[in-house]
Amino acid sequence: MVTIAIFGAGRIGRLHAMHAAEHPRISVAYVVDPVEANAAAVAAITGAIIADAERVFADNAVDGVVIASSTDSHAGLVQRAAAAGKAVFCEKPLSLDFASAQACVEVLNRQGTRCMLGFHRRYDPSFRAVRERIRDGTAGVVYQIIAFSRTGAIPPIDYIRVSGGLFRDSSIHDFDMARYLLGEEIASVYAVGGCLADEAVGAAGDIDTAMITMVSRSGKLVQINNGRYTPFGYDQRIEVLASNEVLRVDNAPRDTVVVGTREGLSSAGPVHSFIERYATAYRAEMEAFAQLITEGKAPLADHNDGLEAQRLAEAAVRSMCDKRPVAV
Amino acid sequence: MVTIAIFGAGRIGRLHAMHAAEHPRISVAYVVDPVEANAAAVAAITGAIIADAERVFADNAVDGVVIASSTDSHAGLVQRAAAAGKAVFCEKPLSLDFASAQACVEVLNRQGTRCMLGFHRRYDPSFRAVRERIRDGTAGVVYQIIAFSRTGAIPPIDYIRVSGGLFRDSSIHDFDMARYLLGEEIASVYAVGGCLADEAVGAAGDIDTAMITMVSRSGKLVQINNGRYTPFGYDQRIEVLASNEVLRVDNAPRDTVVVGTREGLSSAGPVHSFIERYATAYRAEMEAFAQLITEGKAPLADHNDGLEAQRLAEAAVRSMCDKRPVAV
Amino acid sequence: MVTIAIFGAGRIGRLHAMHAAEHPRISVAYVVDPVEANAAAVAAITGAIIADAERVFADNAVDGVVIASSTDSHAGLVQRAAAAGKAVFCEKPLSLDFASAQACVEVLNRQGTRCMLGFHRRYDPSFRAVRERIRDGTAGVVYQIIAFSRTGAIPPIDYIRVSGGLFRDSSIHDFDMARYLLGEEIASVYAVGGCLADEAVGAAGDIDTAMITMVSRSGKLVQINNGRYTPFGYDQRIEVLASNEVLRVDNAPRDTVVVGTREGLSSAGPVHSFIERYATAYRAEMEAFAQLITEGKAPLADHNDGLEAQRLAEAAVRSMCDKRPVAV
Amino acid sequence: MVTIAIFGAGRIGRLHAMHAAEHPRISVAYVVDPVEANAAAVAAITGAIIADAERVFADNAVDGVVIASSTDSHAGLVQRAAAAGKAVFCEKPLSLDFASAQACVEVLNRQGTRCMLGFHRRYDPSFRAVRERIRDGTAGVVYQIIAFSRTGAIPPIDYIRVSGGLFRDSSIHDFDMARYLLGEEIASVYAVGGCLADEAVGAAGDIDTAMITMVSRSGKLVQINNGRYTPFGYDQRIEVLASNEVLRVDNAPRDTVVVGTREGLSSAGPVHSFIERYATAYRAEMEAFAQLITEGKAPLADHNDGLEAQRLAEAAVRSMCDKRPVAV
Repeated sequence: MVTIAIFGAGRIGRLHAMHAAEHPRISVAYVVDPVEANAAAVAAITGAIIADAERVFADNAVDGVVIASSTDSHAGLVQRAAAAGKAVFCEKPLSLDFASAQACVEVLNRQGTRCMLGFHRRYDPSFRAVRERIRDGTAGVVYQIIAFSRTGAIPPIDYIRVSGGLFRDSSIHDFDMARYLLGEEIASVYAVGGCLADEAVGAAGDIDTAMITMVSRSGKLVQINNGRYTPFGYDQRIEVLASNEVLRVDNAPRDTVVVGTREGLSSAGPVHSFIERYATAYRAEMEAFAQLITEGKAPLADHNDGLEAQRLAEAAVRSMCDKRPVAV
Repeated sequence: MVTIAIFGAGRIGRLHAMHAAEHPRISVAYVVDPVEANAAAVAAITGAIIADAERVFADNAVDGVVIASSTDSHAGLVQRAAAAGKAVFCEKPLSLDFASAQACVEVLNRQGTRCMLGFHRRYDPSFRAVRERIRDGTAGVVYQIIAFSRTGAIPPIDYIRVSGGLFRDSSIHDFDMARYLLGEEIASVYAVGGCLADEAVGAAGDIDTAMITMVSRSGKLVQINNGRYTPFGYDQRIEVLASNEVLRVDNAPRDTVVVGTREGLSSAGPVHSFIERYATAYRAEMEAFAQLITEGKAPLADHNDGLEAQRLAEAAVRSMCDKRPVAV
Repeated sequence: MVTIAIFGAGRIGRLHAMHAAEHPRISVAYVVDPVEANAAAVAAITGAIIADAERVFADNAVDGVVIASSTDSHAGLVQRAAAAGKAVFCEKPLSLDFASAQACVEVLNRQGTRCMLGFHRRYDPSFRAVRERIRDGTAGVVYQIIAFSRTGAIPPIDYIRVSGGLFRDSSIHDFDMARYLLGEEIASVYAVGGCLADEAVGAAGDIDTAMITMVSRSGKLVQINNGRYTPFGYDQRIEVLASNEVLRVDNAPRDTVVVGTREGLSSAGPVHSFIERYATAYRAEMEAFAQLITEGKAPLADHNDGLEAQRLAEAAVRSMCDKRPVAV
Repeated sequence: MVTIAIFGAGRIGRLHAMHAAEHPRISVAYVVDPVEANAAAVAAITGAIIADAERVFADNAVDGVVIASSTDSHAGLVQRAAAAGKAVFCEKPLSLDFASAQACVEVLNRQGTRCMLGFHRRYDPSFRAVRERIRDGTAGVVYQIIAFSRTGAIPPIDYIRVSGGLFRDSSIHDFDMARYLLGEEIASVYAVGGCLADEAVGAAGDIDTAMITMVSRSGKLVQINNGRYTPFGYDQRIEVLASNEVLRVDNAPRDTVVVGTREGLSSAGPVHSFIERYATAYRAEMEAFAQLITEGKAPLADHNDGLEAQRLAEAAVRSMCDKRPVAV
């Protein structure tokens, strides 16, 4: 059995708690959250004790910690966990401040901390299948990747204010996916963006629409299109053009009903959110965390991957600002 | 070069005329139609002379005749063509009266007339591809066939009155397709039907909705569903369940636009009519007729196929009437 | 809170146990299964006590029982539950013997037992959406229903021997769906079938391929095609032709990857089994059982529905045997 | 009746000739081509006289000329046609040399020549439907456009050498489509590209893979991905993200067969070439040319559109060379 503690009992913390509770080899010993109701909810699902951080890090029985608390607490908790010798499963990013993230990664590398970063898309069966066909050579040589990532509705402006901006908050998943699929690093980033969908986003200092072009070190081309708003809802697709195959991951429809009328055929739009779209992926993450702890099996994404994706986000910010491609 | 004459210059006759005119090896010498405007239209497309039947059958230069005139004239024209030694491409049916059709087929067989019957679906690339995968063994052993054939809108009641009824007029294409795909004969037919969509059809003595179940001699199962009305338009699909493959022919959409909104995704319904759906098939029929004349190459469907499909239509009429399966 | 007991801890029993355990308002007090390992597995998930039937029925704290034990035990347990005043959630069928099922239903009706029958498809969001569009008039008048239900692989012959045969075991879900969607009773059933896919099924006295035609009391037409084997896997679709809309429920694909090569485009086949396909439906069933207990809210399917579907299965057996349509 | 002459009897010239011949109101008086066999083939289809340019321009009966000859002859012929007062339907580009194209457009504008440029995609029903939904406000405000245009196979290197390069030869259709759909001009172009698929293309001084990002004057974002090679064949799609709708134009499949096996579902790839994909569009172009001549009705694309698209191609060339976005 693996014993873990969960920091943060909000939406994503509760999700991990549920999967941990369902997992036959994981026991949730503690939950830590300043909001009592949230902590209580996770305690009810998992049987965990509501505790503070000190108690968690002091308890030798705790093998690993899931860090799903507010973003500004990530770096501190990760480093305390590293010091206490716990395995870490941290939601992205380590820190919105790139220098802090860098410092944090250095600590983790120095201490040899087993750390898994919450790039859940890597655990999605469809994206994984695409990765496999590239890695084992079936797809052939990759030429181009086109990634679509857009949420259905503009999130609350309060969230946007603390999100780090579209590139650091949302595009980062596409930056990671590009690296994951290409299996190599990016050499240059060019980004354009604007506030086309909702002025309130602009007033909060962010953009709601963006397009990014990247070239990898060996010359492969990547296009990303992002947005905070999509009429038909949550939109996350990718297309890889390679020498043998074109690989596509489509959205997952809400149901399988097709209605035919005089006007044509209509079918369901995509599932509403990442919660539904990536249910299998989140479950697989918990299993991977268990394997990281028990067998030391490397996760699909670690803190170094987190840092590299952030590096691309920083480059995108600069590119949009300077109106030129930025070398990475 | 192949020299032909066209009997009947209505919608289907004009279609054949156009394809004949476009065909590099076919010359249309005559067009025969009591309605002068129709004959003139075909003459304009093809350069044909407007003539009467006598002149056509007397002209030794005429290699073959396309019979697309009114149904009640088919059997007579076919037999005159046979007597004159012309190759025949006749629209289905030879006659709505089964005994006449039988007599006609006997004549054709006795005289060794090269005759092609207008079961255009056999010439459609999609249905042909399915047939090929069955015939060459790729699909494996066939277990079941499910056929959908429905027109979009109730045809004019005047047409329904002279159509021979749903089974003889419309289901006949499915009877033929079942024989074509199975490669064997049907042993029993069970049909149910009713006038559910439009009372006027019932008042005209026909049904607008039907379902047919057939068992082949070797025990394979066939289901057909037919109707004179479909909300989304012209609907013609088939599904074959075999031991290695499930083969499906879907409708062809009118365009390739997809519109995504809050309500879901909508796409175009099927093309409006057999004219658009089977454009390639009709063109292939004219090529097949040319090959029948020049090389004696057997067409995909001949008069015997026409008679067998009609036999199944007669059985369906009887089955619905007697409320029991009818052995064929 | 609702307190329940679970009879039968095999595959389906364990599924219900898991959903009961996840449900915030349900507590599983007992599990009953002669196979100790099975009972222990459910006890581990749910915290239930392993008990025998006597103890369950004697415990006044038990509000309802889930009956997922072997088919031959259903009728007996249902009647004991009824006598003990427990609410019942029973997997289909009540009994493979129609007379016993009838007797059982009479008892349930006489005693006013709150009983829910496990026709899980009624709880599937896609099938439900279709039902809703019919019921609220959006779809218009229904003319035809075409149902496809086939498992991917021939089940173990030992299972086939005790299954009651294809019509009672598998087609029964389509019989139920036809009644559910039509909102009216069936007047006649015509069935054909054979052992085309695997001789071993025939040797065990069953068929592996069938087609059924039904006519409802008001003249609507239904076609069902069934099989124990489908090359591409678990296949469960429906199509409803109505005056305003054609409604279709398609299979749910395993993933959303599309691979394009020189040969064409390929995508994933359907999910492998009812477990994955109907995950949401099974969860909804447990919620419905909770609501049946706490609010007396009528389930989507009860014992009378179970009996009516069985009546159609019996008619299908007779029809195939007598080679004629059977009035119901 | 409209009397035209056709310059150039290669693949595209022959296509226009066929559609002109089929058109009820167009008569082809002359065909001009230095390759005798080509000219003869068009003469056979159309009944045209094989002539030289002098005779065509001197004949007052000629209303318009279709210019489908080699690219380097376009500008000269267009200007002679303008001088002779003929309407012009010219294949793109007016000239691969931008200055010559500019000079040519000035002449056409000064003389008020009725000129239609062969941007056939504008005449495709699917792209047109998308344009209409944008123009009439249904789609709402456009935020992003993503365009895919790739040929299936690397064209002959000899063709590549005289093609003007990927941006001027192929991307130009996407540049035009972007302007057509946005209804406004482009402000900046950023292009990256490489020779990833076939070294021979690079040796011939061209690229085979490219990605372009453009920002319109009002800040809308456009991404284009191009290539000379696609495993599944001819690939031409577009996606428009707007405030009310996401609009997509998909590829048109070769047939409608779906094959289901243990491995999944496979369906046909796209039609093989622009000839099949844009058959309807080419036919519509000929009708538009007839309307331009008889009614003076403005075509969907004229010489000014040709020049603007070329301007973007020139900017893309410069951007890729200078590795920076280029203002237009």
